[in-house]
This record gives sequence, C-alpha cells and structure tokens, in this order.
Amino acid sequence: MRIGLGQFNSIVGNLSYNVKKMHEFYSHAIEDKVDLLIFPELSICGYPPEDLVLKKHFLEECTTNIEKAAAGCPDMTIVAGFVETERNKSYNSAAVMYEGKVQNIYRKVQLPNYGVFDERRYFQHGNEPLLIEVKGVKLAITICEDIWELEWLAEFLKSSMPFDLLVNISASPFHYGKIKIKEKILSDCALKLNCAVAYCNLIGGQDEILFDGRSMLADSNGKIISKAKAFEEDLLIADIVTDENKNVQITTLGPESTQPENIIDEIYHALVLGTRDYTHKNGFKKVLLGLSGGIDSSVVAVIAVAALGKENVIGITMPTKFNSAETISDAGKLAENLDIEFMTIPIHSVLEEFDNSLNSVEGWISEGIAYENLQARIRGTILMSLSNMTGSLVLTTGNKSETAVGYSTLYGDSAGGFAVIKDVPKTIVYKLSEHINKISGSEIIPVDVITRPPSAELKMDQKDTDSLPDYDLLDEILKGYVEEDKSARELIQSGLPKDVVLRIIRLVDRNEYKRRQSPPGVKITTKAFGKDRRLPITNHYKSGSDMTDL
Amino acid sequence: MRIGLGQFNSIVGNLSYNVKKMHEFYSHAIEDKVDLLIFPELSICGYPPEDLVLKKHFLEECTTNIEKAAAGCPDMTIVAGFVETERNKSYNSAAVMYEGKVQNIYRKVQLPNYGVFDERRYFQHGNEPLLIEVKGVKLAITICEDIWELEWLAEFLKSSMPFDLLVNISASPFHYGKIKIKEKILSDCALKLNCAVAYCNLIGGQDEILFDGRSMLADSNGKIISKAKAFEEDLLIADIVTDENKNVQITTLGPESTQPENIIDEIYHALVLGTRDYTHKNGFKKVLLGLSGGIDSSVVAVIAVAALGKENVIGITMPTKFNSAETISDAGKLAENLDIEFMTIPIHSVLEEFDNSLNSVEGWISEGIAYENLQARIRGTILMSLSNMTGSLVLTTGNKSETAVGYSTLYGDSAGGFAVIKDVPKTIVYKLSEHINKISGSEIIPVDVITRPPSAELKMDQKDTDSLPDYDLLDEILKGYVEEDKSARELIQSGLPKDVVLRIIRLVDRNEYKRRQSPPGVKITTKAFGKDRRLPITNHYKSGSDMTDL
Repeated sequence: MRIGLGQFNSIVGNLSYNVKKMHEFYSHAIEDKVDLLIFPELSICGYPPEDLVLKKHFLEECTTNIEKAAAGCPDMTIVAGFVETERNKSYNSAAVMYEGKVQNIYRKVQLPNYGVFDERRYFQHGNEPLLIEVKGVKLAITICEDIWELEWLAEFLKSSMPFDLLVNISASPFHYGKIKIKEKILSDCALKLNCAVAYCNLIGGQDEILFDGRSMLADSNGKIISKAKAFEEDLLIADIVTDENKNVQITTLGPESTQPENIIDEIYHALVLGTRDYTHKNGFKKVLLGLSGGIDSSVVAVIAVAALGKENVIGITMPTKFNSAETISDAGKLAENLDIEFMTIPIHSVLEEFDNSLNSVEGWISEGIAYENLQARIRGTILMSLSNMTGSLVLTTGNKSETAVGYSTLYGDSAGGFAVIKDVPKTIVYKLSEHINKISGSEIIPVDVITRPPSAELKMDQKDTDSLPDYDLLDEILKGYVEEDKSARELIQSGLPKDVVLRIIRLVDRNEYKRRQSPPGVKITTKAFGKDRRLPITNHYKSGSDMTDL
Repeated sequence: MRIGLGQFNSIVGNLSYNVKKMHEFYSHAIEDKVDLLIFPELSICGYPPEDLVLKKHFLEECTTNIEKAAAGCPDMTIVAGFVETERNKSYNSAAVMYEGKVQNIYRKVQLPNYGVFDERRYFQHGNEPLLIEVKGVKLAITICEDIWELEWLAEFLKSSMPFDLLVNISASPFHYGKIKIKEKILSDCALKLNCAVAYCNLIGGQDEILFDGRSMLADSNGKIISKAKAFEEDLLIADIVTDENKNVQITTLGPESTQPENIIDEIYHALVLGTRDYTHKNGFKKVLLGLSGGIDSSVVAVIAVAALGKENVIGITMPTKFNSAETISDAGKLAENLDIEFMTIPIHSVLEEFDNSLNSVEGWISEGIAYENLQARIRGTILMSLSNMTGSLVLTTGNKSETAVGYSTLYGDSAGGFAVIKDVPKTIVYKLSEHINKISGSEIIPVDVITRPPSAELKMDQKDTDSLPDYDLLDEILKGYVEEDKSARELIQSGLPKDVVLRIIRLVDRNEYKRRQSPPGVKITTKAFGKDRRLPITNHYKSGSDMTDL
C-alpha cells in the first residue's frame, strides 16, 4: 500500500484555497500511484480557526468544502481534518473519503485545552475508534493529541488490535527541540501498539504559532524511517508492507529531505517562515523596520530579507544626538550588505519640538525617562506613518528578554504589526547572528554589531547593563520564571542571586500591560507571551514576598 | 438560621488582603448574630486567577490562606471559594469552615469554557454533591455555573432531596440586562428543587470583566426576596425559616438596597466601578485623558471623575488647525463643569516638524490619511509622555462602534492603559450622555457636544458619516455580526442594506489586528472584544462572499 503525507500550508478561513491545495496534492499523488493520501488536522479550514467555529455559517462552509474536497479526489482514499457539525455540536474530525464522497468520520477524543490550545471551547470529544482498510493494510485513525496520551490510546484501541498502521493527522505547534519529543512519541506508539505510524503535520505560520511540518513515518520497530521537509510544503510518499513476521516495513520513495542542522538553524527557519506567512497571509508584500545598528534589528532585517526578498524590505534609521557614529554607520553597512532600500530620517528636530511643547507643562524634564520614551515613540510614529503611506507592514524588533522585563517603550519600539523575535531570548539572538554570518559565509551582520555592548541609545553613554543584569543571567531567570513557572524561592535555591531574581520577576509581573498591547510574533519556546501564557494585568500576586528567611 | 452573603471586592493575587476582608465581614456578621456566612467563588484569590493557577507556589498559598481564613472565623459556619489542589490537580472549590478549620469541600462540577471563561484550562471537575446542616437548616452547596444547568443539577442533587436551601457562590461577569436572567435562574432553581436559594456574587472589576454583586435570596416559591447592593460591597443578612407547609421563608434584616434605575444607569455604574478598580488595583491614583470636545471623551471624563474624584482627573486638549473653535471651547467648558485640571498643548508645530521630516520621503502627502493618523499619534505620544512624567494612567476614549470598524489610529487615540467605553456602542454613549446630564441635574456635558455631528477633526470639515453609516444602522449591524455571530446573509435577509452590511463586516474582520493591541476595557455587552471573542488576525474567512444571489 502506498501512502502519501500531504503537509501543506493551509490558510485559516480560506476554505476554497485549502481545497484547491488538496486537489493539487492529489494530482501529484495520482501520478505517483498513491493509494492513501493524508492531510493535516483541520486542514480544510486551517488551524486554529478559533471563534470562527462559533459561527453557524462558517460551520456550514466546512461541511460543503469537505464534500468538495472529496468530490475532487475520487480515485484514492483521502484522510483530511475538518470541523464536523451535528445537531449544533462541533467536532474536530477526520474525514475518510473515497469514490468522491465522505465515507467515514473519526472524532478527536483528546482535546487539548492548555498552552496555546482552547479546543474544549469549541469541540465535543468523540469516543469511538475508527479502523479502515486500504489495499489490505488495516489502519486506525487518530488526531494530534490522541497519540500524546499513549496509555489511554492503547486502552482505547485495545479491542481494535491488531492493525498495521496508526495514522495521526496533526497541527502540532512548533517550539525548538520539540521534534525530538515527537520522534519519541511516534516511536513509543509504534512499539506499544505494534504497528507502523504515519504522522502528517501542518506547516505554516498562523498569528502567534507556527507549524513546522516534518511529517514522519515510523516502522513497527519504532524506527523513524522518513521525515518530510521542515518549514516547507511537502508530499512524503512511502510503501507500507507487512512482512511474514508481522513487522510493518516502510520504504520511502524519493530522496531524504534535508533537515535543520541544529537548534539555532531550526529557530532561524521558523522565524523566516513565520515572518513570511504573517506578512503574505495578511495581504502585505513589503515590510519596513527601524535599523538602529544594534543586534536585534540586524537579525530581524536578515530574517525579513530571507522571508520576503531584499526588494521587499526597507530599513529606516532615525538618529538623534544620542546615537553614536558607529551604530549609525553599522545600520547603513547592514543595509548595504543586504542590498535593501535604506532611509535616514533624523528625528532630532521633532524631538526638540515635542520638548518645546511639553516644556509648558510643570514638572517636564528634558532628558528624563519620559524624554527617553519620547524618542522611541517618535520613531514608532514615523514607521507607522511610512506604513500608512506605503501599505507596508512594520516589523518590531524587541526580543523576549526585554519583552519580559518591559525594557521597551509602549507605542515606541514596540509599535508594529509583527514582532519577529518576540519569543527569542537575547542570548539566542546572539547565536542567531553568528549562525547568520556562518551560513552566509560573510559578515552580513557587521562584527561590531555583535561585539558592542547593547544599548538603547536614548541618552548619553547608556548601556542595557545599567538597568538589567547580564543577558546570560537574565535569560536563565526568565526561563525558570516564565517558561517553567518556577517560584522565586526555587530560583534562588537553585543558586541564582536573590536580589536579581526578586527584581526581575517583579519587572516581569509589572509589565504584563505592555505585552498585552504588543503585536504577535512566532512562538519558538515552550512558553511564549500571548495565549500560551495568560496572566492577569491586574495582579497582586508576588512570588517571593514571603522570602524573609532566605 | 441567619445567613449572611458577604459580597466583597477581592483582588486577584492578593490573598492576604482577601483574607483580611473576609475577617472584617466576619466581625460584622458576628455582631449581627449570623450563623452562616457565604463568600463568593474563588474569593480567596480573586477571579479569574488565570495562569496563576499553573504556578505551584501560588496553589500552596491558596491552601495556606484558606486555612488562615478559617482560623480567623471560628464562631460561625463559613463558605468561601478557593483553588483546591490535590495530587497535582486543581479544583474550583468551596470550603465549608467552622471551629477554625476547613471541614468540608465541594468541587465545582460544571466548568464553563466559553465566552470569557477558561475553567477547563485550569480545573478538574468534581462529581459529588455536598450537603451540610446549619442550625437545623439543610443546605446544598453549588458554585456558579452549576445552577445554570438546571436539568443536570436536579439530577445531580436528586438523591440529596429534600433540602431547605441551595447555596450558590458565584463570580458571574456582568453584562447589561443580565440581572433579569439571573433572577429567572434563581427562581427556576427554587421551584424545581423546592428550596430557597442563596446566591452570593463577587463585586469588582478585573481587567476586561466586572462583577456587579447583587447577591440574592429567593424563597422556595421562587420569589426574589432580597438583593444586595449593585457595584458595591455589601453584607446581606436574612433569616431562613421552614414553615409547617415545608415552605422556606426569607426575612431580610435591614432596609432594601437601592438598585440601578434602568439599563443605562446600570451601564453607567458598571463603567464607574470598572474604571475605579482598574486604576486603583493597578496602583494608580490619577488619570489623564485627551478632551476633544466630542461626546466620547466627555462621557469618559465624567465617568473618571465619578470613579476617582475630580482632583484625580486631568483633561488635555491638543488642538490643530483642524479643530473648530466650538469643540475646543466645549472641551474647556466640560473641564470647567467637572472642575478638573485642564491643559492645552497645541500640537500644530510638532505636526509641521513631522511633516517636514517625512517630506524627504518620496510619496509623502501632507494631509493624506497618514497625515491624519499622524495627528492622533502625536496626541497619543503627548499623553504617554505626561503619563511617564506624572505616573498617571492614560484613559482612552474609543467606543465599541469605532473599535469594531477600526475607525481609530493605532498608537494614536487608542494609546492608553484603560479603554473605558471600549464595549459601549456609540448609540449607548449618546444615551449615557443624556443620563449623565439628567442625574446631575445640569448640563455637565454641554448640549452642543451631544447634538453636534460627530467628527474626528483630522482634516477640514470631516464628519464620521463621511466614512461610516449612521450610528443607529452601524450599531444594529454590529450587534448582529459581533455579538450574535450572524452571517452577512442573515443580516441582509433581516432587512439591512446589503452594501452597508458587506462593507461593515469587512471592516470588522480586517481590524482585528488593531483591537488586539488595544488596552482592556469593561465588558458590558453579551460579547466584548477581547477574550470574550477570540478571532484570528490572519483570517481569510469572509461571510457573505458567496452572496451573488441576493
């Protein structure tokens, strides 16, 4: 039996586009004599459709479109995810289609409602296994989370055993390193259920989350035999044969796809895809961003060029007297290296005019904190003006470390449509910059940008370390507090300095309001700011407030 | 048996404060010889605690604090909501406490996971009724949603029947008119279960949502006998007596509290409480806002003064040449009527300086759309500069109608910490303005402000109706599309003009990105923008795209 895993970049809400994509994959699969073609979870409507599922008219279109999908793929067995509706209840379902019709339906049982997921907001769970046979191969259908609960799954499928192949259609959000966990899950599944596993994952960016593809096939010994492309559409084809010893063997057609060479490369490709998809799926062709000559905006500019092409990226430098000649020149050098359009719009006269206006207010201090923020807001305003004028999307350049502690100006440097490295800790931004120069084989990002101590340059001789600890320490605290939900006590007991820990977690708590108003960006860690981490703004809880004893 | 319903304004995350409040209510209840004192759902930690519940250290503090609450209330039976943890699972529970200890626990069964609720993200559901006896009165404990599923509840409690009193502790978010629904639910409960009902609801604002209090007592004939204060803390005390016919009678102590006189009055008080709580609970004393001389900012200023006191509200007018003498003068008149601090900061010179800077960019058009937005962003920047300087919170003044269609400038008029009338449709803003003048017995809001055709005044002779339909029509379309999830087809078939409907719903869909970056504001309708309505930004779904037949 020949299987095809059709990982495609579905668009949320664009049902006719998604069906067209399925038909294209089907045409290729026909050429390759595929018997069973699998598409990802909810691929008919994109994932996650969120509150679209609460609209009756949307649900009706899901039904019509899965029927259209089936009608266009008559000569093969197709499995695809869609929102099923029956008597005013919705299900996250997989349709099995052949002879141009939906023939069977499997309803997802395990509905994740943690992290970025809200599936119990929308769906009822199913409670019956679905087993089908294609060309003599007996297979069970599952959807995403179903295989992440292996003990439950084994019990659920017990009476259906034995079967040859477990099919899993997924929309499993990316975070770096997660592929290893997935491989282990597939392998465990294969061994526990004594079958091969075919895992078809979505690819593409959708607001805050990203799907990395890398659909996989494991044989019944739990060995990952083949993996589809990372961060790209792909049709992975293989033959599935059960041998005399009841082992299920997999033989892939075509060459093995190249995979990210390491975690940093993986993150880089994730950011490129996330940026491209957010930009294009929201109807933009071009982006603009402020280039400060610092490392964050440099990395974002490189990613934007990789995502959209150099002709679609505009860099703008907006110096004041606080910007050093070196950073201004580095911004220019970077733009030159990337061969992108580059504009210089000095903002000092605007800053002075604001300062004049505000001088009439009692208590206004030129060069105070408000004056620092003012510079960032003037820059935000100029970028937004250019955006309004040209119809380009503004990319923001804040990293996760500064987003966490609120080291940014609301409506200033945080102003824009997409926050490319919002979930990238500063220490990883450094690694990305080195990786970028390594893969390009040249100093695309000027070395000075990487080695110079980071500064917001909003007053004379400012350094990030005036207000923040070293980024190595900061990122370690943030990983513990934000991603792992550790308490102040646990962090301090693990050896981190008490005063810094307490100060940093206060900053994280206090800056929720800023993050709430920031643009979306790609999740790349286990816990990103956004719907992955839902903390109240109004929140008096203080971890460590009881720590007089330490 | 004497019951007390202690509706208090708990603060999310401030467990020691909440326990102190309980002890204060307990002292009053002791004086009044109360036998059973009830506190709202999760009142130990505030509602909703959101992802705080994912922090182990927070859960530990919930446990210690419910024990502290119990220890401080030894001479009475107390029921209070808390997060219970057992073997790494959390429950939304009610503790029954007496003799200084937690004696019984009821776990909420019905966990809402729709609208603003995410309870299945955090909690496991219980599955056992809890019945206790206080001074001969037999009572069953329930939590919020449990009584909203009456058929289920009757089944759940069947084997526990008969009992005299159903206790329900709630954190039931406000929307206008909801009180009638609640009264009916209580009444239905009483009749179905043949018992009296004691409903204790939270009061206070928490980010996007608000609790209105109005705890209630219904007798076993389903009659609402007594209601606690609206939008204020209150201790409602009554005697509960079962007569010879097994009817459960309720006799309230003390006078009946006054209630909102109508829906508009209800909304007004909700906005006042929401503004006060967001401001104070986030550590602010003062607020500032731009006064344009228009109706939105006028209504917001009045609400701010009612919430915080006139000495804590600063109005700022920031005119350009596009502002008429009338609106500038009305802004001043309003400030005078309210007796608040008032500043004039003309922004024309800053606008010109920006214009000069941007004139160097090819394609820049003075007085184009970008130039209009620029004015709003300069104002936003000035307000934020004053906020940074004075530590005051900026209130934004956009209403729901313009928020829906994106008739606002991101980082301009939408810049600020709290959006007071974000969920108030423009037609209701008008009614609020009339109500305000009526209750004040004077023209606090100058009549011209109410009668003048609304305008953003970002170019000469601009009117809202240049870009938008009349607000009556707009709000009708928005109610159908946003609050009721109706399709384009349904709206048009109900008699609304096709071209307007299609244009407006496109605007709503397309402006999700702006709303996502806007500050929180009080939910007052059945569906507010925010966590009540979770639509993707990247979203190609177009209701009505198939409407060639109409």
